[in-house]
Amino acid sequence: MPAEVSIYEVGPRDGLQNEATILSADRKIEMIEGLVDAGVKRIEVTSFVNPRWIPALADHMEVATRIRRKPGVTYSALVPNLRGLDAASRAGMQEIAVFMAASQTHNRKNINKTTEEALATYREVVTEARSRGMTVRGYVSTVYGCPYEGEVPFEQVLRVGKSLLDMGCYELSLGDTIGVGTPRQVEYILDGLLHADIRLDQLAVHFHDTRGTALANITVALQLGIRTVDSAIGGLGGCPYAPGASGNVSTEDVVYMLHGMGCRTGIDLDRLVAISARLGGHLARELPSKYLKAHLGHCARVGKPLA
Amino acid sequence: MPAEVSIYEVGPRDGLQNEATILSADRKIEMIEGLVDAGVKRIEVTSFVNPRWIPALADHMEVATRIRRKPGVTYSALVPNLRGLDAASRAGMQEIAVFMAASQTHNRKNINKTTEEALATYREVVTEARSRGMTVRGYVSTVYGCPYEGEVPFEQVLRVGKSLLDMGCYELSLGDTIGVGTPRQVEYILDGLLHADIRLDQLAVHFHDTRGTALANITVALQLGIRTVDSAIGGLGGCPYAPGASGNVSTEDVVYMLHGMGCRTGIDLDRLVAISARLGGHLARELPSKYLKAHLGHCARVGKPLA
Repeated sequence: MPAEVSIYEVGPRDGLQNEATILSADRKIEMIEGLVDAGVKRIEVTSFVNPRWIPALADHMEVATRIRRKPGVTYSALVPNLRGLDAASRAGMQEIAVFMAASQTHNRKNINKTTEEALATYREVVTEARSRGMTVRGYVSTVYGCPYEGEVPFEQVLRVGKSLLDMGCYELSLGDTIGVGTPRQVEYILDGLLHADIRLDQLAVHFHDTRGTALANITVALQLGIRTVDSAIGGLGGCPYAPGASGNVSTEDVVYMLHGMGCRTGIDLDRLVAISARLGGHLARELPSKYLKAHLGHCARVGKPLA
Repeated sequence: MPAEVSIYEVGPRDGLQNEATILSADRKIEMIEGLVDAGVKRIEVTSFVNPRWIPALADHMEVATRIRRKPGVTYSALVPNLRGLDAASRAGMQEIAVFMAASQTHNRKNINKTTEEALATYREVVTEARSRGMTVRGYVSTVYGCPYEGEVPFEQVLRVGKSLLDMGCYELSLGDTIGVGTPRQVEYILDGLLHADIRLDQLAVHFHDTRGTALANITVALQLGIRTVDSAIGGLGGCPYAPGASGNVSTEDVVYMLHGMGCRTGIDLDRLVAISARLGGHLARELPSKYLKAHLGHCARVGKPLA
């Protein structure tokens, strides 16, 4: 197990875009600043997409410009095209993320492009972003399964991943969009990518906890050497294909497990869970994080990291 | 990963004893028979304890005598003393389980005995049970932490576990009673026991999913060679020390993960989740199983076992 793990907080973007309740910009800013104060060092704060597609993040410009930025922290935003890049640039973003699926049908339905068209668009976006001095993260979704196609051939994951790295992304976040992955599949896919000349430090894992397997999948990824884990405070979000199902793996569950194994994250778990409890109130629902529920139930807390 | 895993279903006992709603004997019998029809081969059906302590299982005699028994299935019941053994024996049980904690304070508070007194009682119970041709399973609780003492020294886990095996238990079920365990701790404890001349086939793992780490812990246990996993349909039960927190790891979540990894369980996941959905109705609450929630939300199901 690694001595240190980098948490990439995606709650303000991937989480909130899938919540029924839309938070005000003030609440979002409070949330983002709170997470950073709790020790989060990398955070995706919004998405510069057309508000028609994602009304929950229509205030991207306000959020991105008003957050108080701390030195040493990476603030990122999702960008779908050159227009979004321009807006992100005007908002002072230093890092952006591009997003596409490994599966053809998901790209058509989700971003209205073929895989080739998406790659062509992002090639322009990434080149332009880098020429402006920004770093770019690449999301590959449906890595473990596609709601339309079922299992996605590994070759498609590899092709999309490689293309994103080749065009200049510094890191791939491998997404289990519908939360179907299991540990052996994680091993299979990560092993495959690592044997295709992709480096460990170019890979991050992004699990949705739809079927409860996220922490098991993360454990196996860590055993294989992965050092960056995406998560969302409270387990925000949901599965757009399953009303009521769990969303992103929760940051506090991940941090609890990591600290329990003696892996440092730099994050204060008590502060994290306080933010999560407040967010549950703002969103008027019981968030799926199990650590949060145990905490709210005042479960006896024991256990400290093993040496 | 193992080709085959044995699921030990504890829902009717460990689950129901911690539910606010008490099911009728009819419902319990329907539940037990349904689980066995779905392919469960080992199941703890009730507890022969004084109904004053566990009113939810006061109908132990009715449940244990009325269930239709299938050949090849192991039906077990918890037994706290010779009186309980007698009742279990009259009910025709072929397997019983004894239960104690690794931690001194938990034994005092939970079963009103010191560790030594508990071991002395069980020595009599196990000897008598075996002389009647029964097999005996031993639960060691608070292995990963005690709500009163915090972390429990490994030596105490080893001493209690060894004693239970020495008196004639064929298997130890190592319980994370308050759900605080993390994968490295699982490795540490299992490794320690295996190096103290306890065999792999004498060990089972029993996790509560209070902080979401159960499937991660099970994954590591399987990697170390463990082949028996306790679980409860729906994730029944709760943490008596944390109202609202999750209980036992859910059987359908475990089975989903195992099948996803190509490990056989002999259990039909669709039938399992149908039982779980009905149980949620009977208990009038949303059960914590994530697979159940995804299923009820009709999340696109993809993924089949890797070869």
